[in-house]
Amino acid sequence: MYRTHTCGELRASHINTEVTLSGWVQKNRNKGFMVWIDLRDRYGITQLIFDEERTSKEIIEKAKTLGREFVIQVTGKVIERQAKNPKIPTGDIEILVSDLTILNKSKLPPFTIEDETDGGEDIRMKYRYLDIRRNPVKENLLFRHKVAMEIRNYLSKKEFIEVETPYLIKSTPEGARDFVVPSRMNEGQFYALPQSPQTFKQLLMVGGMDKYFQIVKCFRDEDLRADRQPEFTQIDCEMAFVEQEDILNIFEGMTRHLLKELKGVDVDKFPRITYDDAMRLYGNDKPDIRFGMQFGELNEVTQHKDFKVFNDAELVVGIAVPNGNKFTRKEIDKLIDWVKRPQVGALGMVYCRCNDDGTFKSSVDKFYDQEDLAKWAEVTGAKAGDLICVLSGDINKVRAQLSALRMELAERLGLRKPDEFAPLWVVDFPLLEWDEETERYHAMHHPFTAPKPEQIKLLETEPEKVKANAYDLVLNGNEIGGGSIRIHDKEIQAKMFNHLGFTPEEAKNQFGFLMDAFQYGAPPHGGIAFGFDRLVSILAGKETIRDFIAFPKNNSGRDIMIDAPANIDENQLTELNLKVEIKE
Amino acid sequence: MYRTHTCGELRASHINTEVTLSGWVQKNRNKGFMVWIDLRDRYGITQLIFDEERTSKEIIEKAKTLGREFVIQVTGKVIERQAKNPKIPTGDIEILVSDLTILNKSKLPPFTIEDETDGGEDIRMKYRYLDIRRNPVKENLLFRHKVAMEIRNYLSKKEFIEVETPYLIKSTPEGARDFVVPSRMNEGQFYALPQSPQTFKQLLMVGGMDKYFQIVKCFRDEDLRADRQPEFTQIDCEMAFVEQEDILNIFEGMTRHLLKELKGVDVDKFPRITYDDAMRLYGNDKPDIRFGMQFGELNEVTQHKDFKVFNDAELVVGIAVPNGNKFTRKEIDKLIDWVKRPQVGALGMVYCRCNDDGTFKSSVDKFYDQEDLAKWAEVTGAKAGDLICVLSGDINKVRAQLSALRMELAERLGLRKPDEFAPLWVVDFPLLEWDEETERYHAMHHPFTAPKPEQIKLLETEPEKVKANAYDLVLNGNEIGGGSIRIHDKEIQAKMFNHLGFTPEEAKNQFGFLMDAFQYGAPPHGGIAFGFDRLVSILAGKETIRDFIAFPKNNSGRDIMIDAPANIDENQLTELNLKVEIKE
Repeated sequence: MYRTHTCGELRASHINTEVTLSGWVQKNRNKGFMVWIDLRDRYGITQLIFDEERTSKEIIEKAKTLGREFVIQVTGKVIERQAKNPKIPTGDIEILVSDLTILNKSKLPPFTIEDETDGGEDIRMKYRYLDIRRNPVKENLLFRHKVAMEIRNYLSKKEFIEVETPYLIKSTPEGARDFVVPSRMNEGQFYALPQSPQTFKQLLMVGGMDKYFQIVKCFRDEDLRADRQPEFTQIDCEMAFVEQEDILNIFEGMTRHLLKELKGVDVDKFPRITYDDAMRLYGNDKPDIRFGMQFGELNEVTQHKDFKVFNDAELVVGIAVPNGNKFTRKEIDKLIDWVKRPQVGALGMVYCRCNDDGTFKSSVDKFYDQEDLAKWAEVTGAKAGDLICVLSGDINKVRAQLSALRMELAERLGLRKPDEFAPLWVVDFPLLEWDEETERYHAMHHPFTAPKPEQIKLLETEPEKVKANAYDLVLNGNEIGGGSIRIHDKEIQAKMFNHLGFTPEEAKNQFGFLMDAFQYGAPPHGGIAFGFDRLVSILAGKETIRDFIAFPKNNSGRDIMIDAPANIDENQLTELNLKVEIKE
Repeated sequence: MYRTHTCGELRASHINTEVTLSGWVQKNRNKGFMVWIDLRDRYGITQLIFDEERTSKEIIEKAKTLGREFVIQVTGKVIERQAKNPKIPTGDIEILVSDLTILNKSKLPPFTIEDETDGGEDIRMKYRYLDIRRNPVKENLLFRHKVAMEIRNYLSKKEFIEVETPYLIKSTPEGARDFVVPSRMNEGQFYALPQSPQTFKQLLMVGGMDKYFQIVKCFRDEDLRADRQPEFTQIDCEMAFVEQEDILNIFEGMTRHLLKELKGVDVDKFPRITYDDAMRLYGNDKPDIRFGMQFGELNEVTQHKDFKVFNDAELVVGIAVPNGNKFTRKEIDKLIDWVKRPQVGALGMVYCRCNDDGTFKSSVDKFYDQEDLAKWAEVTGAKAGDLICVLSGDINKVRAQLSALRMELAERLGLRKPDEFAPLWVVDFPLLEWDEETERYHAMHHPFTAPKPEQIKLLETEPEKVKANAYDLVLNGNEIGGGSIRIHDKEIQAKMFNHLGFTPEEAKNQFGFLMDAFQYGAPPHGGIAFGFDRLVSILAGKETIRDFIAFPKNNSGRDIMIDAPANIDENQLTELNLKVEIKE
């Protein structure tokens, strides 16, 4: 037996008992006549003591040789610590070691195994197994497990069944790129890895499973942006005989439960906002509502004067920055530079100081008098001491720009508090969106999303106006879940495929099994999927999902620890009837 | 809202309440003036009644049009049933329907949605979403979910952490064939899908996670035998600072918990048997011990007479078939034919009847007298009324043959009772096994398995004699789990790779990251993995894993419902730098 207790377990009540511990050497302080060692495992740190008076010479000499991260086993007596350490739960005691075994030596680690490490991102990824020993990473993984267990138990109690859907499925060109898997047994043919279990969960509803969930890996062969992973984890859910309201209620309940159990946060009924309002008020379909700064549309109160920039603009829109009048001229100039960066892309920014005495001072005082500016303040909700920032231009672009500015300001002003949680449902998404590149409509959510029944007829005339029974759950400015009521009628599904530019042959070829299934008594159904990596990181008050994945890939989709992907044997290729042909 | 209750929920206490139900039409009995419909959902069946006196004409006429598997919504009053049906929980009541909506029509299903269906295997797989509506398949999936939840909660309580390991990893030629995934971003390179998370779980132990588990999909591109799936689910577990005894205890506890919670079966401490004893006593490393029929080795009591067949044999071995003397001569001849089938491959079978009067009658009475045969009975444990079956030949072959015969007889005699559970640990597996084809040793378990420390030196001289700290958990004649204590020492691991025929370069190339990791303080560790599909099916008293997988593949690795694998676009291939070249 390697241990009687873990390194996080011993307390004053254990004093005088003989124990055996195993773990890693976190720290070795050698004072010559005395040696202290911090012994670490997953559960904590326990101090070991060796001294000339009470420890054999052989053992104390051996203790002196122990380097950082050596794996050792010790036996000894729990004694009261002279200088107690109230910062750790084992701080009242130490172990007077009587026996010491080196279980494994360690080379000096390439970075320090401390909460704050000296290792850069790359070296920590290469030696991820050492990075995981560090408290912050370890705690993230423990937290992830806890979230998963809470979700599984919550949904199970609500009669959801976790069903494993297949990983080796069929490639469909719709959506992002699939990863494919060549089949050896079926020559020249390929499986695809699922981007989501979408069709399977719908088939489970046709199959009468009624309430399904799965915490499941999904795969997307995308050009990776920062913080996108080619494999990611989804909480995938579907229910039969439900309307949108039923789904919102269940998953609002689940999210409320997670916030309560994991963060001790009570949240009342989640607010709801339509997609159109979210765009109008926040310029964004996943608004962070932990702070105000709602958009005020200023066309009416700005476009009657000689300021050509505003008069020519499709939209003039502003936000009131709380206490923003304290910004210096230099700080405001920097803000203007910030919105003009190519990543944001505004041509400029108009601002208006709201002075404490109720007067206004704007960058366009030439065109607007105090009465005009008072109206700006009224529309944007600015109070004395605030700063109004105004952007103008093309409606979609300017909303995105002002949304970026709003988030940046909130970040700078410390309004995005990691321990505050503000969930929000965004509903009534458009069914379709026009894609400039392919010059056709794409499904905004996916091709199985049901249009609002009363708007189906608009599909023929004004398809862009059709709203869907689709919804996103937004938490602190991040979309953590999204879903929809599905089409369960074969005719409407065929019509949708037609609108999305599928020929009947393509539709049959790719989704024939689903359309077939709809002929045999498909129930009304709908669902939602949560990005699990993101949900966990946001619940932990962080935004980098990579820190919550045990073995993440880098931005080129590589696992630099195991060095994958890699070349494979010529034999393997031959067996798969494949030849690699790299283009020049 | 589609329903106020499910179809399994209403009882006598609900009589006189107004309810709304949704579900599928299981049965429609039209008596003209009266219509009864069995309405089905996942939770049960509720009888609907429409009659001329109490139902509007319009509704009763609509009810008559409802075909099997139509999806309907009804509202009505719960009333007491005239003829109660004690077989179903809702059998006391029926619904007098006042409103009926057809939610979706159904074509006539290609097979009946009944417990006993008229559909063959292929048609049921093609329409798996309909097959899932049938009780037996549905119950299997619900049971699978329940088993998974029990396991997760049990292990979580024991401080195990579920950690998700990556699916896009690196191909290694050791073991079975990998499925590979071409990388678009890394030209000409491939990921591989994991055959198991073996190396990752060991890295998690190096990383200090201490106790890990994961219910995870694994992939093997094997030529499929009956009941093998290219993707299968494993309960993968690993622990640090443990010896074999610790692992056996934890997972014996888990298995006992599952038997208790799911089957109501109490099992005492699981018996243990060495691999050598299992082979000697059952001819098999996964013996079914629900019944006796242990092997008796008969060399000593048979090889002193003139029967050349036995004298020339490496092993003469028999079993006593309980009450086998009741077999007719014809039945015994059929048994002899059975062992001579190529699948078994015996050249013949000698038998000896143990008569009720204590005399014996054998097929080789020419060579053996009553005294000889009495010894046979003694060695095999045969009693009056039994039949002794004896095979002879090469030791490995004859053991396998007699094991097959033992299982066949047990099956015929009804000794393999599905509601009886006899778990067993098989321990002390050989470390290596000789492979005739490649003329080298292979790791019996895998290349990370630790040899028994005291036998390491034998590696140089008699490698086949080295036993490993490896163990299997066997349940009712099926291996449900297997694992080992791992090597955590870089030198020993290098020595193992050498014995397995890896050059140092190959070892470094394939497992370099693991050997690197072992340099930084790897703790002693070990683990086990359970075949989850098999475990679930055996707990349910069945042996066909396919019935416990929502969307299984057929014997050619095809999903015939979605028709995968399939050809992919030429564009996709080009992007992946691949060309298909099918050999003639």
